[in-house]
Amino acid sequence: MFSARGVPAVWKRFSSSSTTTIVTKAIPSKTHLHAPLPDSAFPKGYVLTGLHCGVKKKPELLDLAVILSTSSRPTSAAACFTRNAFKAAPVVVSQEVLQRNGGRARAVVVNSGCANAVTGKQGMEDAWAMVRATDTLLPDPQSASETLVMSTGVIGQTLPIAKILEGIRAQVPSGARTLGSTFQAWERAARAFMTTDTFPKLRARTFEINGKTYRLAGMDKGAGMIHPDMGPPSGQLHATLLGCILTDAAISPRSLQSALTYAVDRSFNSISVDGDMSTNDTIIVLANGAATTAGEPEIDEERDPQAYETFKQELTSFAADLAQLVVRDGEGATKFVTVTVDGAPTYKDAHAVASRISTSALVKTALFGEDANWGRILAATGSIPLSQPLEPSRVNVSFIPTDGTAPLPLLVNGEPEKVDEARAKEIITQEDLEIKVELGLGSESAKYWTCDFSYEYVRINGDYRT
Amino acid sequence: MFSARGVPAVWKRFSSSSTTTIVTKAIPSKTHLHAPLPDSAFPKGYVLTGLHCGVKKKPELLDLAVILSTSSRPTSAAACFTRNAFKAAPVVVSQEVLQRNGGRARAVVVNSGCANAVTGKQGMEDAWAMVRATDTLLPDPQSASETLVMSTGVIGQTLPIAKILEGIRAQVPSGARTLGSTFQAWERAARAFMTTDTFPKLRARTFEINGKTYRLAGMDKGAGMIHPDMGPPSGQLHATLLGCILTDAAISPRSLQSALTYAVDRSFNSISVDGDMSTNDTIIVLANGAATTAGEPEIDEERDPQAYETFKQELTSFAADLAQLVVRDGEGATKFVTVTVDGAPTYKDAHAVASRISTSALVKTALFGEDANWGRILAATGSIPLSQPLEPSRVNVSFIPTDGTAPLPLLVNGEPEKVDEARAKEIITQEDLEIKVELGLGSESAKYWTCDFSYEYVRINGDYRT
Repeated sequence: MFSARGVPAVWKRFSSSSTTTIVTKAIPSKTHLHAPLPDSAFPKGYVLTGLHCGVKKKPELLDLAVILSTSSRPTSAAACFTRNAFKAAPVVVSQEVLQRNGGRARAVVVNSGCANAVTGKQGMEDAWAMVRATDTLLPDPQSASETLVMSTGVIGQTLPIAKILEGIRAQVPSGARTLGSTFQAWERAARAFMTTDTFPKLRARTFEINGKTYRLAGMDKGAGMIHPDMGPPSGQLHATLLGCILTDAAISPRSLQSALTYAVDRSFNSISVDGDMSTNDTIIVLANGAATTAGEPEIDEERDPQAYETFKQELTSFAADLAQLVVRDGEGATKFVTVTVDGAPTYKDAHAVASRISTSALVKTALFGEDANWGRILAATGSIPLSQPLEPSRVNVSFIPTDGTAPLPLLVNGEPEKVDEARAKEIITQEDLEIKVELGLGSESAKYWTCDFSYEYVRINGDYRT
Repeated sequence: MFSARGVPAVWKRFSSSSTTTIVTKAIPSKTHLHAPLPDSAFPKGYVLTGLHCGVKKKPELLDLAVILSTSSRPTSAAACFTRNAFKAAPVVVSQEVLQRNGGRARAVVVNSGCANAVTGKQGMEDAWAMVRATDTLLPDPQSASETLVMSTGVIGQTLPIAKILEGIRAQVPSGARTLGSTFQAWERAARAFMTTDTFPKLRARTFEINGKTYRLAGMDKGAGMIHPDMGPPSGQLHATLLGCILTDAAISPRSLQSALTYAVDRSFNSISVDGDMSTNDTIIVLANGAATTAGEPEIDEERDPQAYETFKQELTSFAADLAQLVVRDGEGATKFVTVTVDGAPTYKDAHAVASRISTSALVKTALFGEDANWGRILAATGSIPLSQPLEPSRVNVSFIPTDGTAPLPLLVNGEPEKVDEARAKEIITQEDLEIKVELGLGSESAKYWTCDFSYEYVRINGDYRT
């Protein structure tokens, strides 16, 4: 990976007099995390494509995805958006489309390479232009826009909008249309989401409600500026993580939104690569009912709470899978670490402690160095105020190996264990690891997923725009 | 610096099949930040030493400092301690000494190499043993302990207490006493504070109150796990940054504490190297009145508010100087960056935004890469909730060069400027830089000092204990 990008020019400046050569750790290949799926695994009633329109320089890199629902039933849409005060234009526009339509939308358009964030009035016009151009591709287009838009890439630069519109308009039936519903079509759409990602993130699964089978498929992207905090459209907004989940189940707009809000808290809002929250983070879900018949009612939390609960849990579990892929592909990551916090007085406390450990530069560099420096875990745990004071003598910390061997207690009731350093090293040299912290203050728990902090992270982010 | 430590063994493991060689940027030498001072610059009535007692392996590294007040007037003491829930034993013990004695103490003992943190009952016994051994060195010792203690280094390991006590006891008048009041004595004490520091941090200055001259001198240490949040002893506690400030002025214990609390908020609590708060952060100040005569009253905020105000401002400015030295020596730092936030509704808001920008991994890696990626500054600014919602159209961001040339506006009223990238590069390639953010919501402001995030930071912290 290094050689593909070469040595950044800025370090070269020093090469005449004062450089030092260091040998860095290789980043594990992530290619095995992407494998072909049968066409039948994907939800019915969607056509997709991914193409190169010219936002990115290299012609082999895809930068535009178009996703359309072709279902004859109404398509429900829900989304969670970044809570950042500097919401990018596509975030503002997608919120408005959703609100105007009462939670109905049939299309999603996505570009990578440029975030269309902090781009003023021009940015808003460009985002609306993407929406309107995509609207025209829908079967039986309505007067109100039915397209949601997402962008990811550099902040503060305007989109090459003419190229993007040309790319969208090529998808009209009379044009060079590449929309399809095969695995290849889904995969090209997923590739068009990518920025510093090293592999496309695409997953599909089936689930059952009341004996009927439905499908869920989704794609996401993200490798840096990953520490989302997303809420429903009506809330105060913050998050560059983009995700799009599609299902052929039928569910009412309000129930789709409440299921998504629950799922995002326990998936995308519980991952961190670098602790930085983006201006663009967006997760969209569409439910087009293509697997149901015309008269069948939509799933709704009041009408059929049990069906709703099943759907919500399926969505949450699927979202967690997609979210974990982002951490696996974290910029420069060599480790995948699950942080579990148990025994908290509230879920918020558990989530806050797990987040603090997951974002500590000292914990993350120790993980990269494969140094079982658990003191840094403790320091991070103690550094944030909780709703109830932390009592050090109740705290337990352990490493849980992922190979099924016995956990290794590091701190028991606030007192350090005589740690077998060889055993600790054995656990920490594995690619996957779980850190478990028990606070002893209550019964709430939270999980967070994070990665380590490597030379490669610094290299990627010191040299992103050049 | 790299060659002195060699290539960490953990990266070497990969050298057979998959290493990559990268050329890294040289870390600027910091030696010019430490220069000799005349003996007369230091406050009267103190004797100090720094020695090697054996906490650190290499015999040339000092690891124990002893500081005694020899003044015949009462010595006031005040301190700010970490707010981390896992307070190290020396923090707990120093708080107790200060409280028992109503803000009087005459000695400080400090070890580096081991933090005596998360060390249970043994740790408490060891910290008390250091205090009692140092008490016996004082002229005219009292029954109550008058020594404050600080430790810094690895967390979760117990002190080699026998070696430390031997080192302290060597300072009895009949022993191998090295206590003195020359520049060399002050400098050895400062060296004994050091862990990953690359130079000893020692400063002295004089100031006047009501026509009389007093002296202030201080030393501090810290290069990593630097993101202090310290409060007075009575408050809820959090912060490894150690500092000790000594003056020969006479000031009442309560006024010394309130001046220190004010000063620490605007100095040590406004710096960040890596965003990690330590279990040991402690700043101690002693005022021994050695420059005053026996009948002269102590400065007190109620008795003489103007004298108190002068003292408080001198202490704050001096503390800011000492705090900035820590950032200059930040682990792996190649940049010294001042973050100024103006136009906030409250000081807390201004401080929170400045802190968020100062700890953003993306902002810090861009600074290392000398990439004027101001979008990351914006994303960080917008990512935390303020007491009043941020209005993007009121926000201004600029780079202020430190060479006196014109500022470079990047964002004006929420709209991006057409930035002259060559000029931006010119500013960002300087070692010193100021980032200014104007929120347009009020009149409060705060300053923060931070550094960049380099390969060297990752190397130091991936390999700290080995």
